[in-house]
Amino acid sequence: ARPKVGYFYTGKTSLSFISEKIQQIKVADRKSLPVVIDEETSIYDGIVTLFLEDVSSIFVTSKGCLVGVVSRKDFLKNAIGGLNLSKTPIGVIMTRMPNVIVTTPDESILDAAMKLIEHEIDSLPVVEEITLEDGSLAYKVVGRITKTTITRLFVELGNDG
Amino acid sequence: ARPKVGYFYTGKTSLSFISEKIQQIKVADRKSLPVVIDEETSIYDGIVTLFLEDVSSIFVTSKGCLVGVVSRKDFLKNAIGGLNLSKTPIGVIMTRMPNVIVTTPDESILDAAMKLIEHEIDSLPVVEEITLEDGSLAYKVVGRITKTTITRLFVELGNDG
Repeated sequence: ARPKVGYFYTGKTSLSFISEKIQQIKVADRKSLPVVIDEETSIYDGIVTLFLEDVSSIFVTSKGCLVGVVSRKDFLKNAIGGLNLSKTPIGVIMTRMPNVIVTTPDESILDAAMKLIEHEIDSLPVVEEITLEDGSLAYKVVGRITKTTITRLFVELGNDG
Repeated sequence: ARPKVGYFYTGKTSLSFISEKIQQIKVADRKSLPVVIDEETSIYDGIVTLFLEDVSSIFVTSKGCLVGVVSRKDFLKNAIGGLNLSKTPIGVIMTRMPNVIVTTPDESILDAAMKLIEHEIDSLPVVEEITLEDGSLAYKVVGRITKTTITRLFVELGNDG
């Protein structure tokens, strides 16, 4: 049957419109700039960076490749733990690869949001795989997806239409 | 015109389905349990509560009524600031009423999410207004809405349908 003007056949509930629309959005469309520091940086300087950039997590690199993540929670735990914050490198307290949960530009934003919920984390580094000179694989950090990213998208979807 | 079976007239884009659906959801449908401490509690005990309950903000009350909010960020700032954490009450470092942004059970979750984004905060106390014996108004804390609440809802909408 030829659809009439002004009508369209849906065969769908309004909910399936929502999930379809959401599933089309990619991490690449929504990622924000990552905040990255070297693993030799002191914990104290890491905390200063956290406040200056106003982020909840910092990505840690060595020779430009992702080696870990430090969250506001990690910093707070160690700030009251008696460590010398100015002399201890951030590498000591970070969550280290391969235990870092990551996302990629071509992943759907829904899958990224599910990782945030499932792993109870605030932030995901967006990475691209690169091959090092010795043939091993490593990650370059190209962005950041957080619960703020998702909340902002939710607000846009709710106000659209 | 009479709609045909299997077709329905929408006059809407699929985006307006999304915003309509989102706008129907109330704070009351989604709020989680609040974590509340008295303003005389020490900062140190506040930090311990934050970790035990695994939340990013704590609501502060006096005689059962909301007087302030302390976030993980407030704790971190003061943890490295040289205060005596065990002897300083949390009331000293909290964001104090009337500067606390709140939501109510009958507000839409979309409006609550917009407050999180606009005020750059992680968490909103859900409050009910009560009248004190002297006739003044105060807030009782009945719940909590966070960016995690919104991210979880986003994941449900994306997987529904």
